[in-house]
Amino acid sequence: MSNLTQRYHSSDIGCEVALNLIQNKILLRTFPPDGRYLVGVSGGRDSIALLHWLVASGYKNLVACHLNHQLRASSSDRDAKFVQKFASQHDVDLEMGSANVRVIAAKREMSIEAAAREARYNFFAQVAKQKRAHTIFVGHHADDLVETLFINLFRGSGTTGLGGMREVSKRRVEDVDLTIVRPFLGIWRREIDEYIDEQRLKFREDASNKDLAALRNRIRQRIIPYLEKTLGRNIRQNIWRAAMIAAEEEIWIEDQLPNASDVELSVAKLQKFPVALQRREILKWLRAREIVNVGFDVVEDIRSLLDVDSGVAKVNLPQDRHVRRRAGKIFIE
Amino acid sequence: MSNLTQRYHSSDIGCEVALNLIQNKILLRTFPPDGRYLVGVSGGRDSIALLHWLVASGYKNLVACHLNHQLRASSSDRDAKFVQKFASQHDVDLEMGSANVRVIAAKREMSIEAAAREARYNFFAQVAKQKRAHTIFVGHHADDLVETLFINLFRGSGTTGLGGMREVSKRRVEDVDLTIVRPFLGIWRREIDEYIDEQRLKFREDASNKDLAALRNRIRQRIIPYLEKTLGRNIRQNIWRAAMIAAEEEIWIEDQLPNASDVELSVAKLQKFPVALQRREILKWLRAREIVNVGFDVVEDIRSLLDVDSGVAKVNLPQDRHVRRRAGKIFIE
Repeated sequence: MSNLTQRYHSSDIGCEVALNLIQNKILLRTFPPDGRYLVGVSGGRDSIALLHWLVASGYKNLVACHLNHQLRASSSDRDAKFVQKFASQHDVDLEMGSANVRVIAAKREMSIEAAAREARYNFFAQVAKQKRAHTIFVGHHADDLVETLFINLFRGSGTTGLGGMREVSKRRVEDVDLTIVRPFLGIWRREIDEYIDEQRLKFREDASNKDLAALRNRIRQRIIPYLEKTLGRNIRQNIWRAAMIAAEEEIWIEDQLPNASDVELSVAKLQKFPVALQRREILKWLRAREIVNVGFDVVEDIRSLLDVDSGVAKVNLPQDRHVRRRAGKIFIE
Repeated sequence: MSNLTQRYHSSDIGCEVALNLIQNKILLRTFPPDGRYLVGVSGGRDSIALLHWLVASGYKNLVACHLNHQLRASSSDRDAKFVQKFASQHDVDLEMGSANVRVIAAKREMSIEAAAREARYNFFAQVAKQKRAHTIFVGHHADDLVETLFINLFRGSGTTGLGGMREVSKRRVEDVDLTIVRPFLGIWRREIDEYIDEQRLKFREDASNKDLAALRNRIRQRIIPYLEKTLGRNIRQNIWRAAMIAAEEEIWIEDQLPNASDVELSVAKLQKFPVALQRREILKWLRAREIVNVGFDVVEDIRSLLDVDSGVAKVNLPQDRHVRRRAGKIFIE
């Protein structure tokens, strides 16, 4: 039996495995198998393992969601056909969509990765509305979490950037509130490989995985192996733990913040916060306005609007939007 | 003029420099130059630059503190003589101490680095008591902060480990409350080098800097250069920022915690906290009990004492100390 299977079925469990087991039990309790859920399925190793595992765990009312990114022509079409076949074999409903990610990226001046993510979530939101199912399972695993931590650290995100990926998170997309669930966040890629082997699952190889140009792939294929070789130890476990702790702390910090659903931020209110909370509040407010992936500089620029004596009253956002301060309020236009 | 001089004297300042300038102004206001302060001086580049800069900034009542670690025999003695000469040239009081760090490390089963740090802080506390000056300036700079973040991340610390070093922090050592101030935390090693060159300062080369066996040196000399080469960008600034933000958030989180001065922790009280705060509270409590440098596992073991139904009522600490749970209380013996 692979570790992945063992992790959720064996009673002979070590500490770390026990942790995952507990988390997974809570997960299953929170999202019981008789509910209707969406599952993001690219056709790659991780999402195929996820869909298979959910079916095996008794989830009966799943809607697989596959977006054709049109990035690799016939290969993308074959991905779609593969997912279609897999879903029908496993008796899972399927919703397919299509988006020209390259065009979106060019038009909105985003990276291909960011444009693909946005297109995907727009598609998920659309299906969620249609199917009245607002919870979506996605296949992110422990190695993804570690890689994301490095990306945020190297790129510089608006906060510490550590808690970027959570087991359960909320995301508002075009008036649809999505709950994103990552059951594999405590599972390593190697363990997913074992599960794939053991279950003899077929999957589609993602060509972009081999493209070292992307930051994530450079971190995955060169930096993490180099670090482990140079340090002579497995660092992934410690980094994973730091990211999980950071995520818990972030949730707690954000719970302390006032509700960010107001369209405008009050300058007077925000001024009373300590700096750390001002940053969080601004990020939470931007996210509620569907402005994501902003860097530290934007957050600090918005913070500078709190200094009403300075002449600055406008901050540029991506995609030709702006944050303005007027009459003691900060708003987006 | 070097960047370091410029940073604090020039009016023509960019954004990042302005940030440092503001921080430094607050620092000088909080610790005005007419007060009495200790300065940790090893004789190396950073502490010599620090001492020189403090004197140049008008600090008149400084006590340089030099501990002979006895790690490199005659070389250590020459360090001590060098500091003696430098202090007398600059009209600064000097307190010298000596500790056999290798023996301490062996006896207490600590790393040389940890034993040296402990010996140093014990010495600082002793001088602080004697001189009735409880604030000590130390020479940690921006590169130290970045390296520390990596060390904590790779090793796995009790929390996210990001905010490990702050511009101003408190530390209780043998009934003495020390305030540790790091004026150079926003200054890069390269800028300190420039200051050293410009002021034509002599300093002692620390032989251990060249020893790649130590984790810090491996990170400094191999890992960070490799990362910058592979990623084709300067990552230090973003990592520094993440560490500074994390430090601010940590301060804020800890301010939300109840006072950790109680000798015992109440199980009932702690159970009511969210997990993120339980961890912080345990770490704060351990630190107040002078137990530092504990890892994630120890914190989680202590957290497991909250489960009163489990049989576990004892957790081992370093140096043959223990945390126990009895009658609804958690304490150290």
